[in-house]
Amino acid sequence: MKLEELIAAARGEVEVDLLIEGADVVNTLSGERRRSDVAIYDGTVVGFDCESAKKVVDLSGMVLAPGFIDGHVHLESAMVTVPEYARAVVPRGTTAVVADPHEIANVQGAEGIRYILDSSRLSPLSVFVMLPSCVPATHLETSGARLDAEALSKLIDEEGVLGIAEVMNYPGVIFRDPQVLAKIRLAGKKKVDGHRPRIDGHCPLLSGRDLAAYVAAGIGSDHECTSSEEAKEKLRLGMRIMIREGTAAKNLDDLLPLVDEVNSRRFLFVSDDRHPSDILREGHIDSMVRRAVRAGLDPIVAIQIASLNAAEYFGLRDLGAIAPGRRADILVLEDLEGLAVQKVLKDGAVVAEGGCLIAPLGKAPRPVSESMRVGRIGPGSFDIKAEGNLARVIGVIQNQIITRSLLTRPKVDDEKVVADVERDLLKMAVVERHRGTGNVGLGLVSGFGLERGAIATSVAHDSHNIAAVGIDSEEIFRAVSAVRDMGGGLVVVDDGKVTASLPLPIAGLLSDRSMEEVSELIEEVVGAARDLGSALEDPFMTLSFLCLPVIPELKLTDRGLVDVNKFDFVPLFVDEDEEGEA
Amino acid sequence: MKLEELIAAARGEVEVDLLIEGADVVNTLSGERRRSDVAIYDGTVVGFDCESAKKVVDLSGMVLAPGFIDGHVHLESAMVTVPEYARAVVPRGTTAVVADPHEIANVQGAEGIRYILDSSRLSPLSVFVMLPSCVPATHLETSGARLDAEALSKLIDEEGVLGIAEVMNYPGVIFRDPQVLAKIRLAGKKKVDGHRPRIDGHCPLLSGRDLAAYVAAGIGSDHECTSSEEAKEKLRLGMRIMIREGTAAKNLDDLLPLVDEVNSRRFLFVSDDRHPSDILREGHIDSMVRRAVRAGLDPIVAIQIASLNAAEYFGLRDLGAIAPGRRADILVLEDLEGLAVQKVLKDGAVVAEGGCLIAPLGKAPRPVSESMRVGRIGPGSFDIKAEGNLARVIGVIQNQIITRSLLTRPKVDDEKVVADVERDLLKMAVVERHRGTGNVGLGLVSGFGLERGAIATSVAHDSHNIAAVGIDSEEIFRAVSAVRDMGGGLVVVDDGKVTASLPLPIAGLLSDRSMEEVSELIEEVVGAARDLGSALEDPFMTLSFLCLPVIPELKLTDRGLVDVNKFDFVPLFVDEDEEGEA
Repeated sequence: MKLEELIAAARGEVEVDLLIEGADVVNTLSGERRRSDVAIYDGTVVGFDCESAKKVVDLSGMVLAPGFIDGHVHLESAMVTVPEYARAVVPRGTTAVVADPHEIANVQGAEGIRYILDSSRLSPLSVFVMLPSCVPATHLETSGARLDAEALSKLIDEEGVLGIAEVMNYPGVIFRDPQVLAKIRLAGKKKVDGHRPRIDGHCPLLSGRDLAAYVAAGIGSDHECTSSEEAKEKLRLGMRIMIREGTAAKNLDDLLPLVDEVNSRRFLFVSDDRHPSDILREGHIDSMVRRAVRAGLDPIVAIQIASLNAAEYFGLRDLGAIAPGRRADILVLEDLEGLAVQKVLKDGAVVAEGGCLIAPLGKAPRPVSESMRVGRIGPGSFDIKAEGNLARVIGVIQNQIITRSLLTRPKVDDEKVVADVERDLLKMAVVERHRGTGNVGLGLVSGFGLERGAIATSVAHDSHNIAAVGIDSEEIFRAVSAVRDMGGGLVVVDDGKVTASLPLPIAGLLSDRSMEEVSELIEEVVGAARDLGSALEDPFMTLSFLCLPVIPELKLTDRGLVDVNKFDFVPLFVDEDEEGEA
Repeated sequence: MKLEELIAAARGEVEVDLLIEGADVVNTLSGERRRSDVAIYDGTVVGFDCESAKKVVDLSGMVLAPGFIDGHVHLESAMVTVPEYARAVVPRGTTAVVADPHEIANVQGAEGIRYILDSSRLSPLSVFVMLPSCVPATHLETSGARLDAEALSKLIDEEGVLGIAEVMNYPGVIFRDPQVLAKIRLAGKKKVDGHRPRIDGHCPLLSGRDLAAYVAAGIGSDHECTSSEEAKEKLRLGMRIMIREGTAAKNLDDLLPLVDEVNSRRFLFVSDDRHPSDILREGHIDSMVRRAVRAGLDPIVAIQIASLNAAEYFGLRDLGAIAPGRRADILVLEDLEGLAVQKVLKDGAVVAEGGCLIAPLGKAPRPVSESMRVGRIGPGSFDIKAEGNLARVIGVIQNQIITRSLLTRPKVDDEKVVADVERDLLKMAVVERHRGTGNVGLGLVSGFGLERGAIATSVAHDSHNIAAVGIDSEEIFRAVSAVRDMGGGLVVVDDGKVTASLPLPIAGLLSDRSMEEVSELIEEVVGAARDLGSALEDPFMTLSFLCLPVIPELKLTDRGLVDVNKFDFVPLFVDEDEEGEA
């Protein structure tokens, strides 16, 4: 819209599109709840005072609030496309998200990031992007892409890009890795559209001088605080505190007591990683606002945290408030107690009503590239040659992403190590799937409890190769092949046959179905895996973290077994002499 | 400083320059007052925890706060150079100002703006600049420069430029003057250093839809609110409220009651126009903080308003708090009740102590150009031909900048209109002084009360031509000539001789002396003018506003008499028939 037109509409020289009458408005700027009309023209709020409009809507008794903003989210955790994500979260009041497409970038690099940016034009959800800073996550795995500072410099000026995403490699910052600092410098003074980039942080438990160094480098936020004390130190040093309620990590109860009237502007609400079933059952940012209010926070402050604070931190001057010149992203709430979202307006149009999206969705563009490039494999690829008597075993801990490094004498048959179901000792494999290298990492795992068959997944942090666990080479081969053949996804194989599957054809990470369907399919595959004997709550989630070589102790990548404490590869077999030491 | 060095210093790998021990720190980010050490390296705060330093200072019992920021100031009102301004305000706790060099730009254009920017490197005061949006202020006067959008576009990327200064021409915005909108668009997406420009507002009493239109256009602040109701409306619409305490306009008492815990982040403190004697006697931003606290505001909130809020609004990420990575602009206060500023650190160095600047000052660069280019004038230039019987008279109102438009039958002698001291009817002249056009605007004024002599000044808003009032052409000529000959300033002439003067050789606006000397000289010239019979509190200030053709009713510029309500020229003489109408 032209500036002239906007001004004319605000003055009432042009008839506005929509006039909302009768409602109370939560004004995040003046800190008030107040009866006020709202006039909207061409998707933009133009004022509180208006005589006539093309359409007049009476919302007496309702409360209007600015749309909620998720300040940090990995959309990939929801396993659906951006439009389908929008279908789930927009009716719950989220009208903008700041996404870190870390997962898809590890698979498809710049193309994956552009895919997310492009997708955002297909739905009534504003998707901003922070550029993933850790692609690949480590040198110990084969990822689908490498995004160094130079590659990121080509993306930083894209519309919708707000800066550099969580710099998980905090040792790289404080020990001054030139590549990491080059990425930080990139955010210093680069955007041609006048937006000054932000750099998000990720530094669980970092404290004292190392934390000061991390902050001094320009890192503006953290979403990894698990205690009020940790958050307080980060707040004092100048970090915005992103209060997270994900599926695994939930910090609202611990951090909320820290929020007070003098510092509340420094907090944001974020979901980070939230799985389909949780979004569908509990909601999104709305659930955080609701819980914060129930815990005693002033609803206006809670709404500021959910909207204005993120807008201010990221420099999104047209979001975060219902005020002239800002986008008409408006929630119609029943009240400020239950905060039930009755309707959602995006850019002035009603896009959701009664919990359902009513706006049409564009079809998400499929990424151009095929993400599944697996080298030649056969059942023999998964055979483990017995090269010693004592072997390392990844010891799974229920509901945790850390593992133990165990030692055992594996069962050997025909000079090959085989699974030993009696002792819950299974074979694990990670098959490289980005470049067709043919890399297959092999190991042993304890704690899955499968009594037959195999499971495999192309969601395997952070490089998302194909990870599989099973009782023998044949079953593992079948499962991996099935994942490959459907272009990525989750698979359960029993007696050579696929008994359940969730196809994730987009980058091997995202489904092209609705969140409800995905949620049901996840239940099916998890159920099928548990039918094979696993007692784990979600064997696929456990499996997806067994490849992550930044979380202790023993992990497996396509390049081999990693001792995370040494941050290096270790052989599967241990000399008997080493036993004491290991 | 290199990023590597900063990180190393924060980690304690390099010995820091200064460690402050024992003091309480006002943390504007966490909203706390708290005992904490502060470590400083190369002018930057690097942390709160440090073992050794080149220098350790114990400030037990003291309170540290971030340096204060004046969010909107016309430095020219203080009539001194930037270093001398710094000498006065830095010891009072102001470490940064956002200047609108509107006056000097009207005289010297881009060169005047660059002069202010350059000057800021000579003193321990950070001077940021908003580009004046109204040069010239109107088409009814001759200014020294014309800064259209294209001219401003050449300045917007200069280091230290933060945006477009108060858009006083609010009718130009709401009626969509293409030149005004071009300036606003300039601030949309221009800075190459990644700073997103702000556009400040100036819209006294603007309300309703016109205000909404002004805000929708992108105007982010207002410093002209005189009542809590006015400020509340502007706050709701999204403007930052700059609470002003200038010499003439004082709004703190009226606006402070509006500040509460949910909206305090939207307020700033500004001085706008504050004269030397007021700065010396009352102080600067410190006096506002002190009075706000005395009025009951939480001292931490008051300090946020005086520091962090301005930093956040203008995107000055390294100011507004004592925290790692931010400039070590630190005030040492005796307590949070009286808020006496004991010491001031700028970029980590003690620059003021006990109310005195101790840092060395650079000499302010004199602007290259001569600003005083007066056409050929003589006593006859100030003769007023009697072209009618009834003449318009500017009616001065004590302590106000509005005037009345009066009619009278002037005294005529030898076909010339002459002053009539009995009736307090004096002659007034405005002599163009920028381009040597020879323009002389002539008129009559009532209310000055001079019984003899003349006064003249080159400070005459907004074009700063030479304005004079006197009892005859000869005395006026002497006064104007004296102003011209000393390159600008304030002059009192009695019986053909200069009895008092304040030279303002820099652009005819600024002295090269200290603020104390300027203050004394102002007292002298005002005293001398009052000795001529004037009962006005400050005849020079009154005179300086008689040329401002945007304030009703009748004003005089170098191009003639202006009826401000008509916003056009009117002749000095009125047809007898018109009398009733006028």
